[in-house]
Amino acid sequence: MQKILVANRGEIALRVMRSAREMGIKTVAVYSDADRDALHVRYADEAVYIGAAPSNQSYLVGEKIIAACIKTGAEGIHPGYGFLSENAAFAKLVRQAGLILIGPSPEAMEIMGNKLSAKAAALKYNIPMVPGTEEAITDVAEAKKRAVEVGFPILIKAAAGGGGKGMRIVDGPDDFEEQMQLAVSEATSAFGDGSVFIERYVSSPRHIEIQVLGDTHGNIVHLFERDCSVQRRHQKVIEEAPSKVLTPAIREQMGKCAVDVARSVNYTGAGTVEFIMDDALNFYFLEMNTRLQVEHPVTELITGVDLVKEQINIARGLPISFKQEDLQIRGHAMELRVYAEDPANNFLPDIGTLQTYITPKGPGVRVDDGFEQGMEIPIYYDPMIAKLITYGKDRPEAIERMIRAIDEYQITGITTTLGFGKFVMQHDAFTSGNFDTHFVKKYFTPEDLQTGNEEEAKIAAILMEQLLGKNKAIVAANVVAETSNWVKNRSRL
Amino acid sequence: MQKILVANRGEIALRVMRSAREMGIKTVAVYSDADRDALHVRYADEAVYIGAAPSNQSYLVGEKIIAACIKTGAEGIHPGYGFLSENAAFAKLVRQAGLILIGPSPEAMEIMGNKLSAKAAALKYNIPMVPGTEEAITDVAEAKKRAVEVGFPILIKAAAGGGGKGMRIVDGPDDFEEQMQLAVSEATSAFGDGSVFIERYVSSPRHIEIQVLGDTHGNIVHLFERDCSVQRRHQKVIEEAPSKVLTPAIREQMGKCAVDVARSVNYTGAGTVEFIMDDALNFYFLEMNTRLQVEHPVTELITGVDLVKEQINIARGLPISFKQEDLQIRGHAMELRVYAEDPANNFLPDIGTLQTYITPKGPGVRVDDGFEQGMEIPIYYDPMIAKLITYGKDRPEAIERMIRAIDEYQITGITTTLGFGKFVMQHDAFTSGNFDTHFVKKYFTPEDLQTGNEEEAKIAAILMEQLLGKNKAIVAANVVAETSNWVKNRSRL
Repeated sequence: MQKILVANRGEIALRVMRSAREMGIKTVAVYSDADRDALHVRYADEAVYIGAAPSNQSYLVGEKIIAACIKTGAEGIHPGYGFLSENAAFAKLVRQAGLILIGPSPEAMEIMGNKLSAKAAALKYNIPMVPGTEEAITDVAEAKKRAVEVGFPILIKAAAGGGGKGMRIVDGPDDFEEQMQLAVSEATSAFGDGSVFIERYVSSPRHIEIQVLGDTHGNIVHLFERDCSVQRRHQKVIEEAPSKVLTPAIREQMGKCAVDVARSVNYTGAGTVEFIMDDALNFYFLEMNTRLQVEHPVTELITGVDLVKEQINIARGLPISFKQEDLQIRGHAMELRVYAEDPANNFLPDIGTLQTYITPKGPGVRVDDGFEQGMEIPIYYDPMIAKLITYGKDRPEAIERMIRAIDEYQITGITTTLGFGKFVMQHDAFTSGNFDTHFVKKYFTPEDLQTGNEEEAKIAAILMEQLLGKNKAIVAANVVAETSNWVKNRSRL
Repeated sequence: MQKILVANRGEIALRVMRSAREMGIKTVAVYSDADRDALHVRYADEAVYIGAAPSNQSYLVGEKIIAACIKTGAEGIHPGYGFLSENAAFAKLVRQAGLILIGPSPEAMEIMGNKLSAKAAALKYNIPMVPGTEEAITDVAEAKKRAVEVGFPILIKAAAGGGGKGMRIVDGPDDFEEQMQLAVSEATSAFGDGSVFIERYVSSPRHIEIQVLGDTHGNIVHLFERDCSVQRRHQKVIEEAPSKVLTPAIREQMGKCAVDVARSVNYTGAGTVEFIMDDALNFYFLEMNTRLQVEHPVTELITGVDLVKEQINIARGLPISFKQEDLQIRGHAMELRVYAEDPANNFLPDIGTLQTYITPKGPGVRVDDGFEQGMEIPIYYDPMIAKLITYGKDRPEAIERMIRAIDEYQITGITTTLGFGKFVMQHDAFTSGNFDTHFVKKYFTPEDLQTGNEEEAKIAAILMEQLLGKNKAIVAANVVAETSNWVKNRSRL
């Protein structure tokens, strides 16, 4: 492979192209109308226009991606994450076109893309699953019998469900019948199907995932865990590696399970096996993501492995560049997804222009982004501006660096998750490691962020008033200096 | 220590403040007229003006630094490198003022600041020195006798010398008398003193230095070597760690020697023991630098240690945070000093305004700088714009990353050493590790850099001509795109 097409945009397109460039491989970008001036287009050796801004007219149209490959002579396709990255039908199209997808086989994607077939594959290796019914049931008496076997608290969820409809948490056997009937009637009216699953409810869940790599020579290794428990709107926002709570023994068990899950589908390329973990450190298989994850850099920092280069070399037919026993965790890495979102408004997207955009630098700071000052965050895609990643010799240092880097990051024109990130880094529950996926719900209120701005504005106003009438240059200079000093001091509290 | 003053400017002032901020320590900047708008002034919690732009009226005036400390309540002073960092008289002033210098004792500085006393101290521990006369001589017959004992080639150098005056390299005994007489007469006329030293001439020298740390509890450790052999105008421009040529056994020997040199003066803080190494890997003590080095980041990247934090904690009386046996080399790091210099004009400073200034990002790239787009490089100080540092799992990856990062670095308005850096990274002598301090003299000619620009301009001109008359927007777009593609393709060659 001398030339690859990157079927993605934004930071991940740049991320992939950087590794390709270091390997001496030429790159082809694709772009929609909204991305004509995007950095990934400038960074690539060549770029092909593939359609209108909405993804279903450009980045999601497999035929256009393949046509762009043929036009430019690209031999391989890196799909990044999102878009077509876990689309088995696209993977088949790529194969039929005689091109190489830098990712797993369509067969592995297909099995892992469906919850039932994924579970069935994993069960062959006795991977722990959340205890519960394997098949959907409707009979209340039978359901209660199973619930008692599984143990309370219990989660009743609609078999045809989604979005929380037909879902009930039951703390004990006494009100089981009532809750079951409510769930069944809700599911019937929502989906026309009243059957439900019953499973153990993990009340304080951590999201722990294991990075794996498999090659075409039958080697499969794991690269330890990432803890992605801090989420908002059920989506990750802060990730770290290693997890503060894992013991070496559990780390080894989870690693082995993840390798087995990958082996169950003869996995090739980079993938992630996701687990849910309860507060007694029991872990249960959730699903496998058959692509590179957004949060892959934290793994790169603690292992020293460039995951994109491994992906490309595996697609070339080369073996993984190291053995399991050569791999060690060194230090600690932390990632904050810097989203164009308003944390004070339920993390809804806050699109606009990056009026100021200055990224942090110095020891232990990595910024993976896809924007420059003056650029606009398009409304059509995921509103992530950047990933801010810090590395330290241990978790406290990674956290201190993250706070320092957040303070250095200058963004105006758009509300971001930077302030929220700082709030989390300074929160006792986070620093002590005593947190789960409910962190935001439990601890975060928008007021935590607003106070600063209000006080800041107040002080600036007072200074303005006091100094009014004097030489204007001095006034302005003093206001700026005093406000800035005050903000700095406050940010150190 | 809750507040420290950083008695420096530019990238190293920012570097020190970043670590201080991560430790929760407040920082005070000092600045001259030329640095009113400098980044280190903005970054600090407070800033104190200390005088006119020339260093001897500001950054070199110890009394002003101490007055700034007293005024702001700073308890400690970090001197960075250069300026007052190795000034024993200043170190004494600091002590007398009841302040803490983040560095070694004035006594250690004094001994290591003088070549003769430094050698005398090192000799107590049998540290290898370049074989030669210990005292200056004038008698030709005696000199020749010693030269034969030491072994040819021989370097004759003026005892009172400097700048190459009174220096002669002699390949064998036959022309020794003649060369000695020339050296003596040259030294007499230049310095009024004809006495000379005689020592073995290392014809293919590598510059290898060992990073050490000592604390006030008597612990001294080394953090392996840096290879700084690529130099221009006898000054380092590219540094790396580890060295490609050292064996584990020699690394251990050199580390032990460096620790012994530090022990000979009860060294506290961060210091560097410099050695010269011949092509048979014999190494000889050169001198000890009693401060943080410009090139310290490559050591930080391969060891995971933040050297500035160690310095500050040692000054606080804490022990070094690790033991020698805990330390391991992981991966490889490369540093390019990005100077405002013209490699085509004997690396003379090329001062001006950073019209475009965009720094590289992504995996394995660290930029330590002190400037932003639109800022001017002042003529008063060292013309270093930035340190570009890359890290990889091995030397080839660190080099590939460096080339990729150089390609991403966008600077216009000033000629820099970026292109020179790329030339070195792609040179067989460098990639094979077969180079010494004569690299630039041996291999580099300004033509290596100029060709690209000329051809580029020619192609742009041809395209302009061809497309003239058509729609202007298309013309401009095509010219830009084609030139850019061509340049990109060329940079991959």
